Amino acid sequence: MEKLFVSGGIVIKKRLENQGVLAATLEPGIIIDNLPTYSLADVRKHKSKDQGIWVTYKNGVYDVTDYVDSHPGGNKILLAAGGDIGPYWNMYGAHKQHEIYEILEGMRIGNILEIPERKASDEKDPYRNDPERHPALIPSSEKPFNAEPPVSLLMQDYLTPNDLFFVRNHLPVPEINVESYRLNIAIEGAGKNKALNLYALKSAFPKKSVVTTVQCAGNRRSDMVKIKPVKGLNWGIAAISTAKWSGASLNDVLKYCGIDIDKVDFDHLQFEGMDTGPDGTTYGASIPVEMARLLKNDIILAYEMNDTDIPRDHGYPVRIIIPGVVGARQVKWLNKIILSKEESSSHWQQRDYKGFNSSIDWHNVDFSKSQAIQYLPVQSAICEPEDGQTLPDAEEVTVRGYAWSGGGRGIYRVDVSADGGKTWTTADLQPSEQSTYKAWAWVFWEASVPIPEGHNGKIELVCKACDAQYNVQPDSVEGIWNLRGCLSNAWHRINVAVPDAE
Amino acid sequence: MEKLFVSGGIVIKKRLENQGVLAATLEPGIIIDNLPTYSLADVRKHKSKDQGIWVTYKNGVYDVTDYVDSHPGGNKILLAAGGDIGPYWNMYGAHKQHEIYEILEGMRIGNILEIPERKASDEKDPYRNDPERHPALIPSSEKPFNAEPPVSLLMQDYLTPNDLFFVRNHLPVPEINVESYRLNIAIEGAGKNKALNLYALKSAFPKKSVVTTVQCAGNRRSDMVKIKPVKGLNWGIAAISTAKWSGASLNDVLKYCGIDIDKVDFDHLQFEGMDTGPDGTTYGASIPVEMARLLKNDIILAYEMNDTDIPRDHGYPVRIIIPGVVGARQVKWLNKIILSKEESSSHWQQRDYKGFNSSIDWHNVDFSKSQAIQYLPVQSAICEPEDGQTLPDAEEVTVRGYAWSGGGRGIYRVDVSADGGKTWTTADLQPSEQSTYKAWAWVFWEASVPIPEGHNGKIELVCKACDAQYNVQPDSVEGIWNLRGCLSNAWHRINVAVPDAE
Repeated sequence: MEKLFVSGGIVIKKRLENQGVLAATLEPGIIIDNLPTYSLADVRKHKSKDQGIWVTYKNGVYDVTDYVDSHPGGNKILLAAGGDIGPYWNMYGAHKQHEIYEILEGMRIGNILEIPERKASDEKDPYRNDPERHPALIPSSEKPFNAEPPVSLLMQDYLTPNDLFFVRNHLPVPEINVESYRLNIAIEGAGKNKALNLYALKSAFPKKSVVTTVQCAGNRRSDMVKIKPVKGLNWGIAAISTAKWSGASLNDVLKYCGIDIDKVDFDHLQFEGMDTGPDGTTYGASIPVEMARLLKNDIILAYEMNDTDIPRDHGYPVRIIIPGVVGARQVKWLNKIILSKEESSSHWQQRDYKGFNSSIDWHNVDFSKSQAIQYLPVQSAICEPEDGQTLPDAEEVTVRGYAWSGGGRGIYRVDVSADGGKTWTTADLQPSEQSTYKAWAWVFWEASVPIPEGHNGKIELVCKACDAQYNVQPDSVEGIWNLRGCLSNAWHRINVAVPDAE
Repeated sequence: MEKLFVSGGIVIKKRLENQGVLAATLEPGIIIDNLPTYSLADVRKHKSKDQGIWVTYKNGVYDVTDYVDSHPGGNKILLAAGGDIGPYWNMYGAHKQHEIYEILEGMRIGNILEIPERKASDEKDPYRNDPERHPALIPSSEKPFNAEPPVSLLMQDYLTPNDLFFVRNHLPVPEINVESYRLNIAIEGAGKNKALNLYALKSAFPKKSVVTTVQCAGNRRSDMVKIKPVKGLNWGIAAISTAKWSGASLNDVLKYCGIDIDKVDFDHLQFEGMDTGPDGTTYGASIPVEMARLLKNDIILAYEMNDTDIPRDHGYPVRIIIPGVVGARQVKWLNKIILSKEESSSHWQQRDYKGFNSSIDWHNVDFSKSQAIQYLPVQSAICEPEDGQTLPDAEEVTVRGYAWSGGGRGIYRVDVSADGGKTWTTADLQPSEQSTYKAWAWVFWEASVPIPEGHNGKIELVCKACDAQYNVQPDSVEGIWNLRGCLSNAWHRINVAVPDAE
């Protein structure tokens, strides 16, 4: 198996063999006597080719500097530079095989005994019991925790790994005792609530699954900020993720409670979360009953995300999944469903997550005059290459990205330009298993686009999508700018450097 | 009633009184002795203030020059200048009352004996049996007949009068014998068709009505032509109209034929018209079965349009109405419905009415690579003022128009600008009786927009709408230009003159 080893690792491998560690039973990351011991601080210093690139795995320290260029997953390995590679291998389990352990141990340079400690918790900090997060997530705010995955990992899997799924919390993550958890279903004006425990939810109703993309209304807000400041988290292009959600259908549960959604004389379905602020505020949202009628069996009271329990950051134990709708209405840690004559009175329904024209600012805004965002408009973005990257020397550039539209509208076409929007190439769409009008999940696309001549060493790549209603993304951010920076879906533009042709 | 008479008419009225015609029994347009007789050619010469503005009504000739400015309906009266006012009064029946007859007869200047003849029909002309059309319609093609109403009349009524409804014919209008008419319903591969006659359609199923806007895929194509030539009729902004359609629901009829649309193992519903070209081509189209499932009872086999028999130009005796969908799929003179595994193979489904990016032209187009247009995207246009008009001297301009989106998406907001799109005013929307996600019919809107300073005597008015999915119209025509000139829904821009401020 010598061929698997990169040059820098051979000496070490020989050393391992001398020590009698058999390749066939290699266990990576165990302490090896006679190797130097490093501290976390030592490792953190080695994050670049200049300083050398070190990573840890369990108790092992590895110098992967020379390996980076031959890494089959490309430079994604750099995400772990100066830190633990373990959380990435947990996510991308294909690494956990004998041949790769061998490669890794071939680069072994030392031991590490320290385990990174969690920050000391302040008893007064309402966020002290928030869960641990994956180190790859890029936070846009720590308290409440909000983060998106790195663009380089966003398209690694069609179903975003739970650990990487973008996180949008409005309040501290609640600690929920599953034994005492109840999902309450109430009809406004009627005296009695129904309450279901988790066991009932899991056993009394057929388990239904839906693969759906969830997007924050503020995804790509950073493009709006460039025009004029807005209030909101400075999301990049990855406040969007896709998972397979499983649970009881809302319709089945309502029927069990004696509610026929087609016949009720109420206009709104309100949802309350168990996440509560220090002032007692509870997260809440609502959707129109009309929407619940249209989506019917596709609305899921989910207790699983990608076939495991929903992680705490994503609503453990129960989150409502409403395909095609903005993330803000898909309430996590779901406590209560209320059939009501009124929309939710929550801040997030009434004074946030609404659209306005670009002449409305904080001095003249009237939130009561606008409609709560529900279905999101057509969206697309370029994930590869990334903004600012230098392309390889070639006549074409391979451009990859995602496209999605709310309300179940499939994607008909994605166009890509390498000259700022003058000429367009139609991208290939990854085939979807979902139907045209119930296309809840995103589409990955790829296009080979000729690099225009006379580029002066840099070009602007642009993408735009068109959905199954032939709705298109607007050309400019200026035309859709709004004071909250929501609904940022203009043509996505990035700048990349191009090696000068000979 | 002297006050009702305009100056020019008083002499005539006196003359009528002298002749013993009593105002109380005034019958307009009867021949009056002692008045001069004019020819059609005489009348046609009088179409402008310079030449005088004459109109006819039955056997009367009237000089309305001095009345135009005080006409309560504004300068719409000019549509009849040099011609017969009768067809307009038939459409706007409120004119037919004693007080207005008096005003008209007060402007009487003569008699006319000629009746305009239909053009001599050529036995070889396949269009020779097309119906007569309202003189106000503005044709974009005569054979087949295609025409839109004048913009000044488009918003006169929320339900477009049948006579003014835009006409989109692909072939000659068929002559159908209602006695022998059958609607055939077929399942591909099954031997036997069901056939229903009109009586059965009217009597065996509940009559259902839906108010829905129909738009041609080519509406506003003239905006695209300005950028670069396209193939297609040069529609203005009025290839869109709204009517109340009544008939049997498709679902009821299918059920009667033993077809449960939720369970059939077919993907497409094909429709064939009775309109046939000289080469035997029959008009055809299809929609996905999935769409029929979603729209269910809102798809109507219509035999009435605005509470009367559907006029010949619009599909007499039966047209299928599929709300939210492009006009081209709502087949007129409906002959056959076929449940099929395949889309319609017709030219209009396969090689027309599809979208492409702006780099696709006739030398590189592959129609099989694009999706047939079904739901149309969000649309809006300014109807008042009209392009090129001079505004009254004021600090604000009142702008009115329509907005609509396909797929039942209601309209959330319309923005209007008087400075080419730099600043925006949110328009007032006429309240709709339809729900947010089954908003099949257009919305009329109105905004008072301040006229910017430093305008140099002209300004650009712009409007853009945003639908219930927060999808917006694209900024530019360039970004959506396509070789067929379909889906022209960029921001609508018009230029108007503004009197210079003192």
